[in-house]
Amino acid sequence: MSAIAPLQIVIVGGVAAGASAAARARRLDEFAHITLLERGPDVSFANCGLPYYIGGEIGDRAALAVQTPTTLKQLLNIEVRTSTAAITIDRSNKRVQVQSIADGTIAWLPYDKLVLAPGAQPLRPPLPGIDDPRLHTLRNLGDMDRIKAAATAHVTVIGAGFIGLEMAEQFRHAGKDVTLVELQPQVLPQLDQAMTGLLEDELRRHDITLILGDGIASFHDADGRLGCTLASGRVVTTDLAVLALGVRPDTTLARDAGLVLGPRGHIKVDTFMRTSDPDIYAGGDAVEVEDFVTGEACAVPLGGPANRQGRLAADHIIRPAQTKPFPGVLGTAIVRVFEVTAGLTGWTEKRLKAAHRDYRVVTVNDNHHAGYYPGAQPLQLKLLWAPDSGRILGAQVTGLAGVDKRLDVIATAIMGGLTIDDLAQLELAYAPPFGAAKDIINLAAFTAVNARDGLVTPVDRIPDDPAVQVVDVRPPPLVAAHPLPREGIINIPFGQLRDRAGELDTSRPVVTVCALGKTSYFAARILAQRGFEVRSLTGGIRAHFDPRSPAKLPTP
Amino acid sequence: MSAIAPLQIVIVGGVAAGASAAARARRLDEFAHITLLERGPDVSFANCGLPYYIGGEIGDRAALAVQTPTTLKQLLNIEVRTSTAAITIDRSNKRVQVQSIADGTIAWLPYDKLVLAPGAQPLRPPLPGIDDPRLHTLRNLGDMDRIKAAATAHVTVIGAGFIGLEMAEQFRHAGKDVTLVELQPQVLPQLDQAMTGLLEDELRRHDITLILGDGIASFHDADGRLGCTLASGRVVTTDLAVLALGVRPDTTLARDAGLVLGPRGHIKVDTFMRTSDPDIYAGGDAVEVEDFVTGEACAVPLGGPANRQGRLAADHIIRPAQTKPFPGVLGTAIVRVFEVTAGLTGWTEKRLKAAHRDYRVVTVNDNHHAGYYPGAQPLQLKLLWAPDSGRILGAQVTGLAGVDKRLDVIATAIMGGLTIDDLAQLELAYAPPFGAAKDIINLAAFTAVNARDGLVTPVDRIPDDPAVQVVDVRPPPLVAAHPLPREGIINIPFGQLRDRAGELDTSRPVVTVCALGKTSYFAARILAQRGFEVRSLTGGIRAHFDPRSPAKLPTP
Repeated sequence: MSAIAPLQIVIVGGVAAGASAAARARRLDEFAHITLLERGPDVSFANCGLPYYIGGEIGDRAALAVQTPTTLKQLLNIEVRTSTAAITIDRSNKRVQVQSIADGTIAWLPYDKLVLAPGAQPLRPPLPGIDDPRLHTLRNLGDMDRIKAAATAHVTVIGAGFIGLEMAEQFRHAGKDVTLVELQPQVLPQLDQAMTGLLEDELRRHDITLILGDGIASFHDADGRLGCTLASGRVVTTDLAVLALGVRPDTTLARDAGLVLGPRGHIKVDTFMRTSDPDIYAGGDAVEVEDFVTGEACAVPLGGPANRQGRLAADHIIRPAQTKPFPGVLGTAIVRVFEVTAGLTGWTEKRLKAAHRDYRVVTVNDNHHAGYYPGAQPLQLKLLWAPDSGRILGAQVTGLAGVDKRLDVIATAIMGGLTIDDLAQLELAYAPPFGAAKDIINLAAFTAVNARDGLVTPVDRIPDDPAVQVVDVRPPPLVAAHPLPREGIINIPFGQLRDRAGELDTSRPVVTVCALGKTSYFAARILAQRGFEVRSLTGGIRAHFDPRSPAKLPTP
Repeated sequence: MSAIAPLQIVIVGGVAAGASAAARARRLDEFAHITLLERGPDVSFANCGLPYYIGGEIGDRAALAVQTPTTLKQLLNIEVRTSTAAITIDRSNKRVQVQSIADGTIAWLPYDKLVLAPGAQPLRPPLPGIDDPRLHTLRNLGDMDRIKAAATAHVTVIGAGFIGLEMAEQFRHAGKDVTLVELQPQVLPQLDQAMTGLLEDELRRHDITLILGDGIASFHDADGRLGCTLASGRVVTTDLAVLALGVRPDTTLARDAGLVLGPRGHIKVDTFMRTSDPDIYAGGDAVEVEDFVTGEACAVPLGGPANRQGRLAADHIIRPAQTKPFPGVLGTAIVRVFEVTAGLTGWTEKRLKAAHRDYRVVTVNDNHHAGYYPGAQPLQLKLLWAPDSGRILGAQVTGLAGVDKRLDVIATAIMGGLTIDDLAQLELAYAPPFGAAKDIINLAAFTAVNARDGLVTPVDRIPDDPAVQVVDVRPPPLVAAHPLPREGIINIPFGQLRDRAGELDTSRPVVTVCALGKTSYFAARILAQRGFEVRSLTGGIRAHFDPRSPAKLPTP
C-alpha cells in the first residue's frame, strides 16, 4: 500500500512509556516496522499493581499482564523481543546493537527513529550486607514473585515513600508482621510533615512498627534471620526486607551513546520528548522534563506521565506538525494506607521553602460530603499559592474518602492556571452523597482569599512569645478532652466572645485557636474589628497540636 | 467602637443565599445591623437533604437544621425573624414592609442595603384536581414532614429530573411501591437521552414503575385513593403523589418593587449580584446570572451557586473594591439512583443543538480505576467541545463509582478554559485503588483530539444506508450474546482484521463497531490506512445499541 519504505521504529523498554509509544505509533502508521525491546521477560505489565499481588488484593497474576508479546503481535503487529538488551546505540549509522539475554547472541537493528524508555532501577545503596539474598527491591513481575514466595512471618520495609507505604500495607494485609523504617522524621517525606499524622496513626492502628528518623546502616545475618542495623544502633531482626528508597534512571545506554543527561543521570528531552539526538526520543522514569509550575527541569517517575510521554513521542515521530508539546509534570501522586488516603499535586511547602520561593499557605479541615448526610468523613487540605498572581502552586490532601477527587480538581486547576479567586468559585457537583454546597476546595480558597485580603492572618503554630494572648475558643467539653499543653491559655467559648472580649488586653497580640481552624477565624474577625492585633491558627489543632491522633478529635 | 452609624442590612430569605449573605456580612462587618427575614418557620436548613430524611437515610431531623435563629444570634449576632414575610419594598425611602404571618402585624424596616434571596417555588400547573391534598411538592421542612407522614403503600413521583429521581429512590428505600412519571421519553431530561439508559435500568431493577413519554393531565379521587390521569389516558392509582416538575422563581416582591426581571421572572443581577437598584442585591434560585460557557443569561437553581452568590453579595456590599465578579454558572449537577450515579457540567448536546451552536462530541467507556485492580466499575463519559477553539463545552458522566470526580475535574477544566489538548495531558492521581495511568478523562480527550485531527471520524449511530459496510469487530462470543439487529453485518474479529481487510469493498464506506468504542477506533485506523472511507461508532454499542441494558454487556 505504502509506496515509500516503511518507517523503522525501535523502542527500548516495553512497559509504560515504551508500550504506549509502540501502540500509538501503530495507530498512526499501520505500515511502520515497530520493534519493542525489553530486557526482562515481560512487557506492558501493570507495575503499579505489583504490591497488591504480593498482598493478595489482586489474586489473578494474569491480570497484571496488560499485554503479552503475542497480543502485541496480534492486535498491533508489533515485533516484541523480550529478554533482549539494547547494549549500544550507533547514532551515526542509526542502529542499535541488541543482545539476547538467553544465549548471548548479538545483532544490529537499524532504526529511523529510536525511543528510549528504559525506566528506573530501585536504589540499592552500597551498605555492608546489601547483597544478602533476603534483601529485595520491587521493579518487575520476577521481583514480585520472589518477594511473595519469600515473605514469611516478619517483613521490614525500608523507606516510607509511596511504594514503601503500599508494601507495608500489603504485607500487613497478607498477615505479616511489619516494621517500616524511614530516615525522615515522618512517613511519606514527599508531603509536609504536618500532613502525615493521620497516615502514621493509621499504620500504628494496624500494628505496623514505625521507626521514623532512623536510616538503614547495614545488614547482617542474625542466627539465620536478617539483621538490619539502623543509624541509631537499633537492630531490627526480620525474615525479609524490601528496599523502597527511591529509584535512579536506567540510562547507561543513553550515557554511552553520548546523549545529554541531567545532573542526576536522567535523559534530557525537549517538550516533544526528543533527546539531544533528534532521531532519538525518550520518555518515562528515565527522563527529565519540565516542572509544570516552575518550568524547571525535574524527574517524576510516575505511571501517568510515562504513558503520556511515550504516546507523545510516537505522535511527534509520525505527525510532528500536529503534536502539542508536553506541558510538564505536576507530580500528582496518591497512596492508600488501609482506610486513610494521602496525596499531593504540585509543590509542597518544604520544596517551596528549600527553593526560596515566595508562597502563601492555608490548611483547612472539612467533611468529604455534606455533614448532615450520614457517613461524612474528615478531610484535611493544605493549599499553597503564589502571593503575586494568586495562582495555585500545590496542594496536599489527607482523609478517609474523597482525597483523590480533591487532588484531581486541584491538579486540573493548576494546569488551567487558576487562582485562589477562581478556586473559590469552582462549581463542583453537589448532592448530599457526593459533596457540599461549599466543598472543602471552595473553603480552602475562601480562606486563602481572606488571608490574601487581610481579613485574617493565618499562623501555622502557636507562638512561644509569652506576650501573645492565646485564646482557645473551643467549647468547654472539647477543651477538657484535649487541653492545649501550655500555660496561660485563655478559654473563651466562641459564643461568649463578643461579650467577653473586654477580658483581653488590646495592647497585646492575640492568637485564636479552635479544633479545625474555622471558628478561630470567626473569632479573629470579631477581635480584629474590636481593635486587636490577631492571628488565627490555620487548620486548627487537628493539624498542629496533635498530629498523632487527629482522627480522634471530636468536631466542635 | 464604630464611629459612624452601623450599616443596616436586611436580607429576605433565610436559606442558602440568604444565610450565606448574612454570615459573610457579619464576618466582614462586626457592627452592622443584620436582619434576616424568612417567610417560613425555619432558616438555614439543608434543603438538599429533604428527600433523604423522607427516605430514612438521614435519621436525625435536627441534622437538617444547619442553623437556628438562636444559633445565628449567638454565633453571628444576626437578628432572625422567621414566619415573617417581606411584602413591599419602598425603594425611594429604602425600607421594607414586613408582616408577621402569625398575627398579621405590619412594620417597616429601614435598610442601607437589601439582599433578596427568596428562592423558588415548585411548579404546580393548573391541572384539574391539582388542589387534591394528596398532591405534594417539596420545598421546606414542613413539606418534608407532611410527605413523610402521609406516604403509605404506593407513591407516585411526577417528573424524573434530579429531585424526582431522588424522591423515587428514597421512597423505594423506605419500602414504598413507586411509580415515576416523566413527560420526556427519558429520565433526567437535563441529560442527553443516550446517557440515561443505565439510570433507567437501575430504576427498573429496583422495581420502580417507570412511565416515560407521558405527562400528567389531571387528578381525581379513585375510590378513596388518588387517580392520576396521564396524557395518554393511562391512569395511575396511588396513595400520594409528589410533583417534581421544576421550580419558578419567587419574585413577586421584586416585581412589585419594579426591579428588572428576566423573561421567566428571575431577578436580573450583574456580576456583583446587584439588581437594577444598586442598593438591592439578589442571589440564589430567584436570580438570572451568566452562563459561564456562553455568557448568556441563565437561571440555575442549585445550592452551590446560591451559597456563593449570597456570599459574594455580602462581599460587594461591604468591600466592593476587593470583590471579584461572579464568573457565571456551569450547572454542574449530580444524582445518585441506588448504585448508579449520573450528572453533567456545562452544556449538553441537546442544548447545543437547540441553540444552533457548533460543537463536536465523543462518548467513551472505561473503568473507574485500573482494570487489573479488583472492583473496577464501568464509567461512561460524553465530552463536548468547540471545534474552533477546542475548549470544553460540557460533559456528562454515568456509572457506578467515580462519577463525581470526573464531573468536578471537567467543571474545573471548563472554568480554566482548558481545551481537549489540555485535557489529554491532565495529570490525575493514579494508584490502583483510585484511577488509571490514563484516566477516562484522558481517554475522552485522546479520542477528541483524534477526531479533531482526522485520525478517526466518530459517528453516533449506525447509518441506515445499505451501501455502508458495517464491520463488527467484537469477538464471536460477544457477537453471539448481543448480535446487532440488522441485516448484512460483517463480523471480523479485530485480531483478524489486517488479514481479512481484503474481504471488504474499498469502494464502499465502512462503519466499524465494537462493544465500547475503543476497538472500533483501532479497526478504523487499520482500514483508513488501507484506503477505506471509514467511521467508528463512538462509545460502542454500550451507548447506542442497547441503552436499556448497558451494564449487562460483557467487556471485550
